[in-house]
Amino acid sequence: MSLSINRESVKQWKLPELVDGCAVRGITGVGLWRYDVEAYGAAGAAELVRDAGLEVTSLCRGGFFTRLDRNLEHNLDDNRRAIDEAAALETDVLALVCGGLQDLDLRTARQRVADAITELAPYAAERGVRLGIEPLHPMFCSDRSVVSTLGQAVELAERAGPAEAVGVVVDAYHVWWDPELDAAVRRAGEGGRIVAFQVSDWVTPLPAGVLTGRALMGDGCIRLAEMRDLVEAAGYTGPVEVEIFNDELWARPGAEALDLIIERYRSELV
Amino acid sequence: MSLSINRESVKQWKLPELVDGCAVRGITGVGLWRYDVEAYGAAGAAELVRDAGLEVTSLCRGGFFTRLDRNLEHNLDDNRRAIDEAAALETDVLALVCGGLQDLDLRTARQRVADAITELAPYAAERGVRLGIEPLHPMFCSDRSVVSTLGQAVELAERAGPAEAVGVVVDAYHVWWDPELDAAVRRAGEGGRIVAFQVSDWVTPLPAGVLTGRALMGDGCIRLAEMRDLVEAAGYTGPVEVEIFNDELWARPGAEALDLIIERYRSELV
Repeated sequence: MSLSINRESVKQWKLPELVDGCAVRGITGVGLWRYDVEAYGAAGAAELVRDAGLEVTSLCRGGFFTRLDRNLEHNLDDNRRAIDEAAALETDVLALVCGGLQDLDLRTARQRVADAITELAPYAAERGVRLGIEPLHPMFCSDRSVVSTLGQAVELAERAGPAEAVGVVVDAYHVWWDPELDAAVRRAGEGGRIVAFQVSDWVTPLPAGVLTGRALMGDGCIRLAEMRDLVEAAGYTGPVEVEIFNDELWARPGAEALDLIIERYRSELV
Repeated sequence: MSLSINRESVKQWKLPELVDGCAVRGITGVGLWRYDVEAYGAAGAAELVRDAGLEVTSLCRGGFFTRLDRNLEHNLDDNRRAIDEAAALETDVLALVCGGLQDLDLRTARQRVADAITELAPYAAERGVRLGIEPLHPMFCSDRSVVSTLGQAVELAERAGPAEAVGVVVDAYHVWWDPELDAAVRRAGEGGRIVAFQVSDWVTPLPAGVLTGRALMGDGCIRLAEMRDLVEAAGYTGPVEVEIFNDELWARPGAEALDLIIERYRSELV
């Protein structure tokens, strides 16, 4: 597996700094966020990445299908734009953070997610983009995603469309604790539905709000090499994308943060 | 279902205040912690509760089977003492918080938990105490319990011993997010293995350390009445035990906190 840097891991850098920093270190992939597209336009961001000799491994993110503050058509339109942006960036992966519970009950919220992905699947497939349903850790169920396990994500994907249109994102931080993980990864792999593999590490105590608790690989308790073996055995051949949200890492100069990430990628995942 | 107050919900009160406060409000059950036994002795605590006309609905807690800082025999001895204490308190439920990952890998940690419970089951059954395996929310997997879903807890219980010896604790806060919850509750109920039902509510943002994030029923997103119906339909006939860890609730005078709990129990669960 090759290394890709999710740009949020080094968000102290603007996109041009990031692609240059990656290029001089021999890293060939970056995962972008929609704010990069907002800043440079899809064509502009694509050009920046391509000119540095890199490719975009994923775009983060579509989803938030349960939001009550926007109507469904508005939400679907925004997701279609995200698919267009992914296509323009020449990545075939759009990661979906499906949306939290809001004021819904779980069954309704999860049905809303299923309906939206089913609706978007053909649009994505026509543009060569695969929707990557990302189960988030259950501690995010109320506010970020009602898709809480990989098994649930795989089942959703299977019902929503063919593997060319809908898959799953395996993010170690979100799924490491799951007693059913091995079976879910195998099932996802058998269907050719693993579209991305992301890594960081789990440490406690969690910070207030829990979002920025992700640690550098090797600082926590996740057996990342085992998980890499698991997704590899399931047939995944894409990159390892490092996605860390961590105030200490963000406080460092970008070059230092990136060097640390590469060091830990080598010691924990190669 | 009747109401029981887990004593940690009103920890600003000492045990004598708590049982008196419950008695004058017509509450007939309390869940105790081992620190009550340390403070008054098992016989003394039992007498305090009995003299107030109450009964102990559960003792919290045994477990922590994965700790590396004590050897296994020491840990099992401590759990046998907890079983003895439950018997002396005339409760038939000892809740188990099984222990976090420590430096183990998940498979080893979970096997250690299974072995310990299997070993303790006959000792508990002989004393009329049921071990209640409590799955904790996956955000506690590394530091408190590697038992993360109700389905996993039920399977553990079934393998460890008969229903008279080993069951599960269904705590709404820990399990509400689980897409497999309904099936797990039904399976637990069919086996007669639901030994306790605890409630509080889920709110975000979570506080640092996440332990004290539990809210009063009605303040969060858990559909508690639906969950009550679910465990009732599965054959559970015991009390609803309110277990809240919340700094604001603890900062109130005990009587005020207890009145609030009763008010919310009535509006959300009766």
